[in-house]
Amino acid sequence: MLQKTPITVAYGDGIGPEIMEATLRILDAAGAAISPEVIEIGEKVYLQGNTSGIDQKAWSSLRKTKVFLKAPITTPLGTGYKSLNVTIRKTLGLFANVRPCLSLHPFVATKHPKLDVVIIRENEEDVYAGIEHQQSADVVQCLKLITRPGCEKIIRYAFEYARAYGRKKVTCLTKNNIMKLTDGLFYQVFQEIGAHYPEIAKEHQIIDIGAALLADKPEKYDVVVTLNLYGDIISDIVAQIAGSVGFAGSANIGDHCTMFEAIHGSAPDIAGKNIANPSGLLQGAIMMLMHIGQREVASTIQNAWLATLENGIHTADIYRPGISKLNVGTQQFADAVIENL
Amino acid sequence: MLQKTPITVAYGDGIGPEIMEATLRILDAAGAAISPEVIEIGEKVYLQGNTSGIDQKAWSSLRKTKVFLKAPITTPLGTGYKSLNVTIRKTLGLFANVRPCLSLHPFVATKHPKLDVVIIRENEEDVYAGIEHQQSADVVQCLKLITRPGCEKIIRYAFEYARAYGRKKVTCLTKNNIMKLTDGLFYQVFQEIGAHYPEIAKEHQIIDIGAALLADKPEKYDVVVTLNLYGDIISDIVAQIAGSVGFAGSANIGDHCTMFEAIHGSAPDIAGKNIANPSGLLQGAIMMLMHIGQREVASTIQNAWLATLENGIHTADIYRPGISKLNVGTQQFADAVIENL
Ligand SMILES: CC(C)[C@H](C(=O)O)[C@@H](O)C(=O)O
Ligand SMILES: CC(C)[C@H](C(=O)O)[C@@H](O)C(=O)O
Repeated sequence: MLQKTPITVAYGDGIGPEIMEATLRILDAAGAAISPEVIEIGEKVYLQGNTSGIDQKAWSSLRKTKVFLKAPITTPLGTGYKSLNVTIRKTLGLFANVRPCLSLHPFVATKHPKLDVVIIRENEEDVYAGIEHQQSADVVQCLKLITRPGCEKIIRYAFEYARAYGRKKVTCLTKNNIMKLTDGLFYQVFQEIGAHYPEIAKEHQIIDIGAALLADKPEKYDVVVTLNLYGDIISDIVAQIAGSVGFAGSANIGDHCTMFEAIHGSAPDIAGKNIANPSGLLQGAIMMLMHIGQREVASTIQNAWLATLENGIHTADIYRPGISKLNVGTQQFADAVIENL
Repeated sequence: MLQKTPITVAYGDGIGPEIMEATLRILDAAGAAISPEVIEIGEKVYLQGNTSGIDQKAWSSLRKTKVFLKAPITTPLGTGYKSLNVTIRKTLGLFANVRPCLSLHPFVATKHPKLDVVIIRENEEDVYAGIEHQQSADVVQCLKLITRPGCEKIIRYAFEYARAYGRKKVTCLTKNNIMKLTDGLFYQVFQEIGAHYPEIAKEHQIIDIGAALLADKPEKYDVVVTLNLYGDIISDIVAQIAGSVGFAGSANIGDHCTMFEAIHGSAPDIAGKNIANPSGLLQGAIMMLMHIGQREVASTIQNAWLATLENGIHTADIYRPGISKLNVGTQQFADAVIENL
């Protein structure tokens, strides 16, 4: 038997625990060779008075296993708290956020049956650097920070990804007509690095019209590389019009550590009701298995998941009377995937 | 006869001159009581060595007429040039950018037949303040600036607009989970001012999921108010999925001056070919006529324009074999609208 790979797991907040349970049950049934080490982060840690939402024990586990499967977490609103998601990405140097979005037509409703786009989002800079201040009673500011090494890293990653996966085109989205220094640098580096990938088509669009065309004709896009904030917005758009944000997983890639998660949030309004779709986190987990070299079990799970959707076994978010066969809960969906393994 | 209202007109760059010609011909044929004063701004002015793209004579005209019908203009890329669009908006204090988007189903193809959304975009602050600098060889920064008076103005405008036009709901989009001071202030002011409009439903969404739901289910939205950059992105998205960015006009509202334009750019690739759709600028012109009190001629033009589209007289961007009747050029489209007056 394969040596088990230690991974760090956080059950998160809101719907986190139930979708993590469903996901880990599927991985276990499929024989994934992982040994999860559970850490507590997010809401409970805040409530204990730790305004960072994460403690030293959790950091140690992350630094040791270097592979993190994370359910959605909640950061309290209010100026005393920095987003824990952002803290983790920055602290672990997770510079690339890879978000594949794929239509599952005809099994899951979409207006865009040919959608197959991978969003590669810069993950550490931009307005996410968290530099905000009150300048006077009525004036507040946020610093958008862009560095050349940051641009180089993400853009090289995007082209390497395209090459590795046989993708044909990389589209870069910026607002370089307004932000000539910051977005201008991102685009300049895109041109410089793109020149080393002659076999891959290159395209640049201003983010406003680029996002509009992505939302209208996503089948015209292949790999998209962009700055942190634009990537945040367009990845939700593309995942949603592919079927649902509930379907998309993401890989947060660093030089030393990697974190896998769903792209959606903790949805406290439906927490604990056994109705959430565990697919986003499961997709994250499948990317994790690929990453740690367990390709076979990853594709077994992917196929079982597809078969479940094809059989019309659907959670409430995608249930369509007449087309879906069964409206199931979170755990029943996991059971169905397990049966299809 | 009505006293003619003096307005300032700029023919702009790229497709600007031809769509302005088409638009003014329609206004003239409909008997709009305007007396246009033409100014030269944009490309030609840059080429004469004026890096602002606008001269004193143009400013004087704008300050005198206070009503500006503007075709798309081009600002050269490169760090020596500030966007002329932004310069005009800021100099004239055009704080609100109003962008109505409406489906013309079944006459114009759309996947969203019930779309009817008005985007009200803050127009002076945010990363558009144009404060960027190179901090070191490898680090560049852009300042996102938000002020309380700026938030108050745009949010009050959005609620007053909703009230005046009998709209039922105002949705506010921010990223206040990350930018707690800047976007946080916008949302706080939304709550404060919203409280004075008990008859209007209020909703707040994080921009990522908000943009995703707008792109997927636009029929669930009514009036949307948001910060400058988000507004830029989502207005292109909503206009495009309603039919085409080529259809949307916008009003840039200030306390003293007002500017009307298409939301699209100068499209140099198709300039001078008589194929551009003049509808976006015409919609801007119709909003202008409403604004200067010529409601009757505004609605005559609107109806003639709708009749033209309903008759299947379509420019190339929206031509669909089988459904459209005639594929016409820019000026022929204008002729058809004039015939329907
Ligand atoms: C929860 C939030 C901080 C996060 C982000 O903005 O990056 C989320 O929207 C995401 O896309 O992963
Ligand atoms: C041309 C550009 C400066 C402008 C903007 O970003 O505001 C345009 O995209 C718009 O939406 O009017």
